[in-house]
Amino acid sequence: MARVSQEHLDARRRQILDGAARCFARNGFHATSMQDVLKEVNLSAGAVYRYFSGKDELIGAIVTEVLGGIREAFEEVARQSPPPMPDVLVTRVMTQVLGLGGTGKHGLSWEGEESFPRLMVQVWTETLRDGELAAVLREGFVAVREAWVAVVEGYQEAGVMRADVPAEHVARTLIAAAQGFAAQQALFGTMPAEVLQDGLRGLMSMGDTDRPGPR
Amino acid sequence: MARVSQEHLDARRRQILDGAARCFARNGFHATSMQDVLKEVNLSAGAVYRYFSGKDELIGAIVTEVLGGIREAFEEVARQSPPPMPDVLVTRVMTQVLGLGGTGKHGLSWEGEESFPRLMVQVWTETLRDGELAAVLREGFVAVREAWVAVVEGYQEAGVMRADVPAEHVARTLIAAAQGFAAQQALFGTMPAEVLQDGLRGLMSMGDTDRPGPR
Repeated sequence: MARVSQEHLDARRRQILDGAARCFARNGFHATSMQDVLKEVNLSAGAVYRYFSGKDELIGAIVTEVLGGIREAFEEVARQSPPPMPDVLVTRVMTQVLGLGGTGKHGLSWEGEESFPRLMVQVWTETLRDGELAAVLREGFVAVREAWVAVVEGYQEAGVMRADVPAEHVARTLIAAAQGFAAQQALFGTMPAEVLQDGLRGLMSMGDTDRPGPR
Repeated sequence: MARVSQEHLDARRRQILDGAARCFARNGFHATSMQDVLKEVNLSAGAVYRYFSGKDELIGAIVTEVLGGIREAFEEVARQSPPPMPDVLVTRVMTQVLGLGGTGKHGLSWEGEESFPRLMVQVWTETLRDGELAAVLREGFVAVREAWVAVVEGYQEAGVMRADVPAEHVARTLIAAAQGFAAQQALFGTMPAEVLQDGLRGLMSMGDTDRPGPR
């Protein structure tokens, strides 16, 4: 038997994951069979099962990559110093997350900008019935929330945001805006991240509307 | 054969839908079998198939109810005059949507506050591979967006929000915040809607941060 380089093994594994991700983004985890994946990657069953024991293992590997890519994007923008204002912060995350599908920088790569958000919505659904994947998602969310809480506390300490609201609630709200915007991309097609930036700018301009008196 | 009142037929249909919704919220559309539904509602196959031809018809009926309930909640708050500020607007929608599971006012009723958000995330995934359901979702989104654009235009005309950002982008952002917050409820458990309200208040207090000069 010929010796196979690690590089070759990694490339083959990548090829299978990318093909499976394309199938899943198109038809969902449940409607996709291993036959569909074999056809997509144009490999024999023997070649594929050498890397993955079955569909569940493929799903697990892809969910882990998707969540890892999203987590990294959220944490990376939170590390910028000085932290950008929320409209810029969230737009940078969105640009990075939406680009995850195209660049392959974070692992998965396939055609179609809305593939990544589509996969993300499916990942959410998958975590609802899979405790292990749910734990990965929860751990990532906690880490991202902590990083964003630190950014929000920075706004409050600098006096650019009222300090009488819990920073964690603002962080959750910013993350929610990004999550919901990504869901809209999955459900209704792509939109530039600047749409979300405009929206946040509009909101930010309103001032403390619950305080009486002129603004 | 005894004659059966319309009321009885409706109640039986409701009973089946509620039981199926409980199963779906728990295990997802795909992992739930008709056997699971029969067991949950404690009815014979004959009794259930009299109302629904199979799982797909059950899923369709539930998706339509879920989306209808959400759409109604969004449209209802947008009709309030004068429209509340965004933090209150979004909180009212969230309170209503999160209550959809419990009250049964809008149709579905079952135990567990996070059931409705869980079902919502699954509905999103289902629309990714079902064109008919996707059309229902899209139509509802367009209607909700229009209603919320009108509210945002109201803010801008009243001078409480900067007018140089497209109202539609702000509306999309507010809807995204609500969607993302609901997704967090599904994925990480319930949270009071006031968390989102606090978060929006924090953002709103920041002012036009892209304009130079003192605030």
